[in-house]
Amino acid sequence: MKIEITERVMFYDTDCGGVVSNIAYLRFVEKARSALFEAMGMDLASMTTTGLFPAVVRTEVDYLFPARLGDEVRVEATLDTVEKVRVGCRFSLAVGEGEARRNAANALQTIVLVQLPSGRPKRIPTEWLSLVK
Amino acid sequence: MKIEITERVMFYDTDCGGVVSNIAYLRFVEKARSALFEAMGMDLASMTTTGLFPAVVRTEVDYLFPARLGDEVRVEATLDTVEKVRVGCRFSLAVGEGEARRNAANALQTIVLVQLPSGRPKRIPTEWLSLVK
Amino acid sequence: MKIEITERVMFYDTDCGGVVSNIAYLRFVEKARSALFEAMGMDLASMTTTGLFPAVVRTEVDYLFPARLGDEVRVEATLDTVEKVRVGCRFSLAVGEGEARRNAANALQTIVLVQLPSGRPKRIPTEWLSLVK
Amino acid sequence: MKIEITERVMFYDTDCGGVVSNIAYLRFVEKARSALFEAMGMDLASMTTTGLFPAVVRTEVDYLFPARLGDEVRVEATLDTVEKVRVGCRFSLAVGEGEARRNAANALQTIVLVQLPSGRPKRIPTEWLSLVK
Repeated sequence: MKIEITERVMFYDTDCGGVVSNIAYLRFVEKARSALFEAMGMDLASMTTTGLFPAVVRTEVDYLFPARLGDEVRVEATLDTVEKVRVGCRFSLAVGEGEARRNAANALQTIVLVQLPSGRPKRIPTEWLSLVK
Repeated sequence: MKIEITERVMFYDTDCGGVVSNIAYLRFVEKARSALFEAMGMDLASMTTTGLFPAVVRTEVDYLFPARLGDEVRVEATLDTVEKVRVGCRFSLAVGEGEARRNAANALQTIVLVQLPSGRPKRIPTEWLSLVK
Repeated sequence: MKIEITERVMFYDTDCGGVVSNIAYLRFVEKARSALFEAMGMDLASMTTTGLFPAVVRTEVDYLFPARLGDEVRVEATLDTVEKVRVGCRFSLAVGEGEARRNAANALQTIVLVQLPSGRPKRIPTEWLSLVK
Repeated sequence: MKIEITERVMFYDTDCGGVVSNIAYLRFVEKARSALFEAMGMDLASMTTTGLFPAVVRTEVDYLFPARLGDEVRVEATLDTVEKVRVGCRFSLAVGEGEARRNAANALQTIVLVQLPSGRPKRIPTEWLSLVK
């Protein structure tokens, strides 16, 4: 299971170093993760009804090449691992086309599903196992 | 001159009141403003080269109806007024379709064009006058 | 009723124009508003228990002078008006000391108190009337 | 070299899951990192003059316990490792007092010093070696 989204870098994504802030990349990652979960059958709008929310328990990001104002950032999100109560997702963020294409950042996130209001983790749907390539 | 963009509400747009944070609406407004300026010939990527940046000097927002996680927010941006050194833009943000359509917020922004690094305001392109309906 | 807080400008508050982003000022405003409401007897931690939350229904900001990385922003928040179901707050944001002191921005916000989960507005506590100077 | 800062959780730090957003923790981390670098002789305000900026090249965060609206988050930042062109910083974020004290998150960041406008990495000051305990 793999999806790709594209986001354009806004002023609010950049900082006075002239490039995208390290924090802003995590918004791009969340957008891609939401699209990935929607493709897996868990869309954002239905979460409010079910009370079943994804919670990030670990994030790793490697910043490789600075994205800049106006860049189209292509974020590819992949379902990497499915365990009993957690899934691992992998993200690559790229800017530029063809020969100018550069890998801006890579990220990994571990996610658990939490049932609100109890806050208890829930079993990962077993059908997600088949979505890992 | 008028454009419309659509943005989906992410977790990072909401707060613990369960709805979109008052601050997050300004990201939606900036996305629409960037699309409006691009349609008027000033795209984000070229700003870094020209050093000519739009600077917001005034913002007004009326919050009318709370957008929620997963909502598609349709932001309509209109070039409202063009003066010697400033333009006025109007924004309406809506959620829902058909009878369920609600106006989530309205906003106004006044923008000047600033030439970096001097920081001096520049005359608004005279051709923008013809873009005001 | 009037309070003052000081916040230092971080990288994440700035954008690639080299100055504080128009959106970031609203975080400074929210910090000052939270301190003002705490001084008026409504602290953030107790809101989760009472379910009574302040909701911003209108914001106006005038951006006057750009704050920069590392600046200490002094935000003064004043309770301006108290009506039946809404209060008006005034904010001034300044940088620099003595002769170098500049007014970076002014803001006004209208706030209602919303009772969750019903979402109904609540009467403003009558004792707040005496806090308006 | 070790410093501690305290930040109160604002509405804009939380999301509709009722707790602090995974992204917001990185603002707390940046505040603590800025205080750490200031204690090491590199304050934010002087960076604009020198053009020497810290750039985050890797971030790891483990989310352990959700901080909530109004919580005081105590962030301890430690200079962990000093190499030729990079330093490693360690962060622990805690909420609650005494027996109720909980570790909300741990983070690691790798930082290089970048000279703008060239964008070239600079040697880490050798005196920082003595700051690692």
